[in-house]
Amino acid sequence: MPKINPGRLLSELKHFAQFGAYQTGVHRPTYSKEDMHSRRWLAQQYEAAGLQAHIDGVGNVFGRPRPERRCLLIGSHAESENHAGWLDGALGVMYGLEIARTFAETPDCAGLAIAPVAWADEEGHYVSLLGSRSFIGDIDQAEIDRAVNVHHGLPLRDALHAAGLAGVPRSLVEPERYVGYLEAHIEQGDTLEASGNLIGVVTNIVGLWQYSIVFRGIQNHAGTTRMAIRKDAGVAAATLAMAIADRFPKVARPRSVWTTGRITLDPGAPSIIPGKAEMLFQFRDPEMAVLERLDAALKELVEETAIRTGCPAEIERTEAGKPCHMDPAFQAAIEHAAARHAPGAYVRMPSGASHDAQVVAGKLRAAMLFVPSIGGISHHWTENTNDADLVLGCQVLADAAETILRGES
Amino acid sequence: MPKINPGRLLSELKHFAQFGAYQTGVHRPTYSKEDMHSRRWLAQQYEAAGLQAHIDGVGNVFGRPRPERRCLLIGSHAESENHAGWLDGALGVMYGLEIARTFAETPDCAGLAIAPVAWADEEGHYVSLLGSRSFIGDIDQAEIDRAVNVHHGLPLRDALHAAGLAGVPRSLVEPERYVGYLEAHIEQGDTLEASGNLIGVVTNIVGLWQYSIVFRGIQNHAGTTRMAIRKDAGVAAATLAMAIADRFPKVARPRSVWTTGRITLDPGAPSIIPGKAEMLFQFRDPEMAVLERLDAALKELVEETAIRTGCPAEIERTEAGKPCHMDPAFQAAIEHAAARHAPGAYVRMPSGASHDAQVVAGKLRAAMLFVPSIGGISHHWTENTNDADLVLGCQVLADAAETILRGES
Repeated sequence: MPKINPGRLLSELKHFAQFGAYQTGVHRPTYSKEDMHSRRWLAQQYEAAGLQAHIDGVGNVFGRPRPERRCLLIGSHAESENHAGWLDGALGVMYGLEIARTFAETPDCAGLAIAPVAWADEEGHYVSLLGSRSFIGDIDQAEIDRAVNVHHGLPLRDALHAAGLAGVPRSLVEPERYVGYLEAHIEQGDTLEASGNLIGVVTNIVGLWQYSIVFRGIQNHAGTTRMAIRKDAGVAAATLAMAIADRFPKVARPRSVWTTGRITLDPGAPSIIPGKAEMLFQFRDPEMAVLERLDAALKELVEETAIRTGCPAEIERTEAGKPCHMDPAFQAAIEHAAARHAPGAYVRMPSGASHDAQVVAGKLRAAMLFVPSIGGISHHWTENTNDADLVLGCQVLADAAETILRGES
Repeated sequence: MPKINPGRLLSELKHFAQFGAYQTGVHRPTYSKEDMHSRRWLAQQYEAAGLQAHIDGVGNVFGRPRPERRCLLIGSHAESENHAGWLDGALGVMYGLEIARTFAETPDCAGLAIAPVAWADEEGHYVSLLGSRSFIGDIDQAEIDRAVNVHHGLPLRDALHAAGLAGVPRSLVEPERYVGYLEAHIEQGDTLEASGNLIGVVTNIVGLWQYSIVFRGIQNHAGTTRMAIRKDAGVAAATLAMAIADRFPKVARPRSVWTTGRITLDPGAPSIIPGKAEMLFQFRDPEMAVLERLDAALKELVEETAIRTGCPAEIERTEAGKPCHMDPAFQAAIEHAAARHAPGAYVRMPSGASHDAQVVAGKLRAAMLFVPSIGGISHHWTENTNDADLVLGCQVLADAAETILRGES
């Protein structure tokens, strides 16, 4: 049986968090200097573990078995959200590395090939899930050429050029080369912690639908324009936000979540009635039927709000990710390993967050494992997980990988 | 009787709009190159009109009579809001210049001294009403040293240095030197146009109270955090906006106005529950008692919202301008002139906007005249006024100035 090295895993995880260290977390945006240093360091570690390392044209880092043979892909994304946690993405990447090392060192596992991987830009500094989408052939060059950094507007092409990736080919999946894909991730919620469980076996990943909603009012002077004649786009946005808060609980399901992440009033000056308001809104649910119901409710509310406030609205759906089911046999392998190492402390659960696994699942059998997040905190530099839980998750995933690969051979 | 030169007035107004021309309006932020060019051009015109021109340490441009004698100050502010109209401020500045020229050319007005003035930063790129406040001694060096540009953060000190104003003294009012102050301005609302009037005789200027309201929620992942445990600061902000929309009409008066000009959700990413929301909110009313009532209602609503949403709130009042009454004899002089040039087409009215006149009124007798704004549009580059109305307003102000100065001598 593959026995991971807990001390090595923890010290390498902490080493990796030095790339872009920020408070107790990291600030390692995709293609930043820190991100590219971390990817080159990973490539070196893959080589040192006896693998053939390769960084492709969007920054995905692959470690392939020498000699080439069918293998199990294990990883996650290497970059972080801005000023965010040290484990989001990095955990799955370092599990991949540790499991590859462990298998290489374990004579009994000699025939079983692990291919660790670190995807690029799952967090969407340029394009959400860019690396895995590129790998399965779900993005074309035109979309890459159009993309810009959502925070500062730098074109993706320029970022790739600066990262030394211009002209490097993008690696495309050859499905017959892979047994499948495993990804570990922190839960990013409080379900495990609250229920006293240590391992989450992911059953499915929710669909995420995202919208840009724009209300157009009449920009005017905030002192001289009587209340009766105003068309205030900001009031329209607030009206919609409250209408959603009122209506969505009635059409949603217990697992549904919805969020207005940004409201931009234009021109945004204290003495000017906003002439335009833009909202970034999203919802998620594991069921397609529920997603469609929420979509219909949202469009109805936007229309009602436009009529009620006299501010015409435009609504554009910018993401429409389908809910996705994890491979049943892979789930069983993870559950079996969890039962061995954490008896009675594991649970099947959906993922409320998007992950590269949902993309890769379009081409390969795929599954995910969650470890607890302390206080459910995520996308913040205070994100953390107990060392013992970090070690346990990696051992469970290693066992599952062995089961899956032995089942293949 | 002073007879203004309509062709000269219009062509000089249009010339002035070339400093920072933007679409059919202007973009002439305080201390920008265009703003400083316009101020130096004004100083040259003041000199050419036989006056002693002077740009003081905050950029106020004065034209003082030669030889020094008691005079009537006439002007407004020379800079514009960002990408805004060509008349806001510029109108009153050019009326001052035209009336000074007219008086200098009219033998009958030989003894009557006009001092045109162009204030700096009424629009508050750095500090609202900076120039007039500096003139009446209502701002100290410490406040100037602390101030930064509200749009891009450049310290005011650096802006003054770049504008060539470092070390130049600020001119302080000597009240005995001035008969008083007149300011003309576009109405920035639709009262005149809607009622078919051509001249507004301003009775008083509303008080403007402004607030920064911050809600603190818990920043977390928008996919994995159950709705039931969220503390969403953005939802708190929308809740407050709707509570204001519901409650304020019940405690306000017909002249009251209130506006949320900006909402900032932090971090402002689509997949992160906002951990912080900041609202810029203001209200205005001509009566102190009403302002105090609105202030109390706002604080109550903020507290209620914090309790209801579980997001603690902080509220800071950043401006608390007192309502101000215009000088009755000056009002009468403007009204008398309006009756002569626009019989039956003038009206007494309050100003819903802030103006330098409310600051200057703290030290000198002051009054204001409004001309119509087409469609009530203001703080937008489409702002405009009919040529005939521009000419009429200047002639009425010139007549009023004569009446006021003759009453003095």
